[in-house]
Amino acid sequence: MIRVEIIATGNELLKGETINTTTPFMAGNLRDLGYEITRTSTLRDQPDEIIGAIREALSRADIVLLTGGLGPTPDDLTRDALAEAVSQPLEFQPDIWAEIQSYFRKTGRSVPPANMNQAYLPYHAQAVPNKHGTAPGILVSYNSQTIVALPGPPNELQSMFNESVLPYLSRNYPPQTFTMKRTFKVCGLGESHLLEKIGEVLPLVDNDRVRLSYLPKGGEVHLTLQVEGDDQHQAKEIFTPMAERINALLGADLYGLNEETLAGRVGSLLRQRGYSLATAESCTGGLAAHLVTEVPGSSDYFRGGVIAYSNEVKEKVLGVSPDTLAAVGAVSQAIACEMAEGVRNLLAADIGLSTTGFAGPEGGSPENPVGTVYIGLATPGGTSNRKLYWPGQSRYLIKLLAAKLALDYLRREISGDQADEDRG
Amino acid sequence: MIRVEIIATGNELLKGETINTTTPFMAGNLRDLGYEITRTSTLRDQPDEIIGAIREALSRADIVLLTGGLGPTPDDLTRDALAEAVSQPLEFQPDIWAEIQSYFRKTGRSVPPANMNQAYLPYHAQAVPNKHGTAPGILVSYNSQTIVALPGPPNELQSMFNESVLPYLSRNYPPQTFTMKRTFKVCGLGESHLLEKIGEVLPLVDNDRVRLSYLPKGGEVHLTLQVEGDDQHQAKEIFTPMAERINALLGADLYGLNEETLAGRVGSLLRQRGYSLATAESCTGGLAAHLVTEVPGSSDYFRGGVIAYSNEVKEKVLGVSPDTLAAVGAVSQAIACEMAEGVRNLLAADIGLSTTGFAGPEGGSPENPVGTVYIGLATPGGTSNRKLYWPGQSRYLIKLLAAKLALDYLRREISGDQADEDRG
Repeated sequence: MIRVEIIATGNELLKGETINTTTPFMAGNLRDLGYEITRTSTLRDQPDEIIGAIREALSRADIVLLTGGLGPTPDDLTRDALAEAVSQPLEFQPDIWAEIQSYFRKTGRSVPPANMNQAYLPYHAQAVPNKHGTAPGILVSYNSQTIVALPGPPNELQSMFNESVLPYLSRNYPPQTFTMKRTFKVCGLGESHLLEKIGEVLPLVDNDRVRLSYLPKGGEVHLTLQVEGDDQHQAKEIFTPMAERINALLGADLYGLNEETLAGRVGSLLRQRGYSLATAESCTGGLAAHLVTEVPGSSDYFRGGVIAYSNEVKEKVLGVSPDTLAAVGAVSQAIACEMAEGVRNLLAADIGLSTTGFAGPEGGSPENPVGTVYIGLATPGGTSNRKLYWPGQSRYLIKLLAAKLALDYLRREISGDQADEDRG
Repeated sequence: MIRVEIIATGNELLKGETINTTTPFMAGNLRDLGYEITRTSTLRDQPDEIIGAIREALSRADIVLLTGGLGPTPDDLTRDALAEAVSQPLEFQPDIWAEIQSYFRKTGRSVPPANMNQAYLPYHAQAVPNKHGTAPGILVSYNSQTIVALPGPPNELQSMFNESVLPYLSRNYPPQTFTMKRTFKVCGLGESHLLEKIGEVLPLVDNDRVRLSYLPKGGEVHLTLQVEGDDQHQAKEIFTPMAERINALLGADLYGLNEETLAGRVGSLLRQRGYSLATAESCTGGLAAHLVTEVPGSSDYFRGGVIAYSNEVKEKVLGVSPDTLAAVGAVSQAIACEMAEGVRNLLAADIGLSTTGFAGPEGGSPENPVGTVYIGLATPGGTSNRKLYWPGQSRYLIKLLAAKLALDYLRREISGDQADEDRG
């Protein structure tokens, strides 16, 4: 595999004033194309350290990517360090200077003389055009290796990387493997549970070309299968049966693939079935509705919701019975059901979805300690509920898990509706 | 300043399967105490590369922190690489082996023989106890330098770092400077606007000991002032007048300091004034209420809300006039006001806060294109509104900006209430 090292320079990165988003951006894009990232590092603005790091990287990697330090000020050292590291003099390039001047003119500013620095490139280097700023990037071919230096600001770097650097690398270092990738998404299933479910395919991962990774993410687990082959045919031969097997093993737990979101999946199901939705939230405080309305076009099926944070609102707006409230308390199976039915009636929706629980840190009762959440679901076919409990979790996580699992409960229940129709 | 380099090892980090959170965690903690982070890097699991990187780091830094590679399996190489880098043999430590065995027994599992590896330390090294896992950390004093290796899992590393490593370093490498730090938080003010407001203090930042950083974050800007002095007195002499000046220049735009959140600030103000709050959300879809209910104890002042995603809900639940809706449309100043008043009445709250707008990507009208949002605020003193417009932003960002600015509008309006009371 083609080895790539990424070196970010900048005191502001090491001082924590700026978060380095460009290294993960480039690494992710290159990995997806089949390149191997073999080292990443962040250096301060010290010429000797930068020169040393470039030379060391060249002793190990095929491609070295540098970011930062291409500005016009004296602490921008990458241009000089790069020339020194590849033992080439810097040369003034009049056409680059003309472009920099025209960039300033276009944005209606006068040209600061300091920016003339940016028109100096190591002898034989190519400039990488920059549409969003003054600093051109620098591309140096060095023996069979390539070094590319790009400016640090993410908007400048990203378009230069996509428009110039990736095409250059794909041409000159065509990936030697073909990669296939799919992400399987589940909600409300722990990592170990998930591993158990797909246990049968795990022995197949004991292979350099097959990779399964788990990313737990706010109540969800994203399982990514990645297969590399010498060509598309070889990759497919391994990938397709494995992907189909994982699909089958996950069954109803699988809510979606790749970029699909849980709320997006719920939206598609509601739309397919012609159902409208209303939410009644207590402990999740609006978060479930927020997730639903993240989906563009959700106003087609989402009528709205009630956040019933006080018992009075539960009674007066949702029509929950004061007797039930007095008898079993707001955090209970009965109230979850009454809230779901209440909002379904109030907003004239096909489906009512509710949450009630103790998100903490204060509150809770002996039977229902902090972390207890009830989910209620009222549908044309009747009302059901589910009890959940996450001990020792933060308020933020309890809200998030409850909102996610409420959506997933809805998804599982109405997926069934379709299965019934399919059968009938 | 004391120089620290951090080396993370692990193929999973370079393959993007795991996000490296431990390097920023340690860097942030060390910076806060006045240490200088001079380089960070991420290496794959290759013994020669790890040994080389440790040796190079020792040629530059006072302290070298290593993470990962301390597990019991053959790809855990840090123990051997560290011994090699400092030219010491590995020695079996029976007391560490006893601790590892007792850890397994406590968690009710049998002891895998492979874990015996973890009881080998370089000669003269100290073990760093690990409460949450089997791998002890390793601390080596090498000339006047220190190398610490910690396991990769964040929960294990964080407690070992806080309980053992930081105390050791503070004792043996007392920070030579005293650092003071304050974060000023504003909402709905762009970075350039903010810079203009505090322009007067900017010349004072031209100094190695004073640092101002800006972190734009979801509609907010967090401005951090950090001052270093040889001792507390010297730091204070610079810090106090600057911090006071920034406070005064930001004035009513400043919503809070340090860890305070916007919703937390709104909550404190509501609590102080004895006001209860209700929300009526259209385009923000529950996000404003979610932010309000992130705050522990928010049920004391938050009665609840209505998410009126359809016009029918606006009319039937919030009592918005069908004539107004027909005349000016749902995204308008008049409807924002009627929604705020409607929810204030419905939930019997002191304050009603509303949002209505076009979050996109579809929708909008010539007068109110996507990105237009109206905020309505009904208080005991009357109803007011504000119009906002963010062209070209994503649905997610428009929702977030609208929810944040609605809370900030409420904050500004009721902060005024107090000022009046103070005067009177």
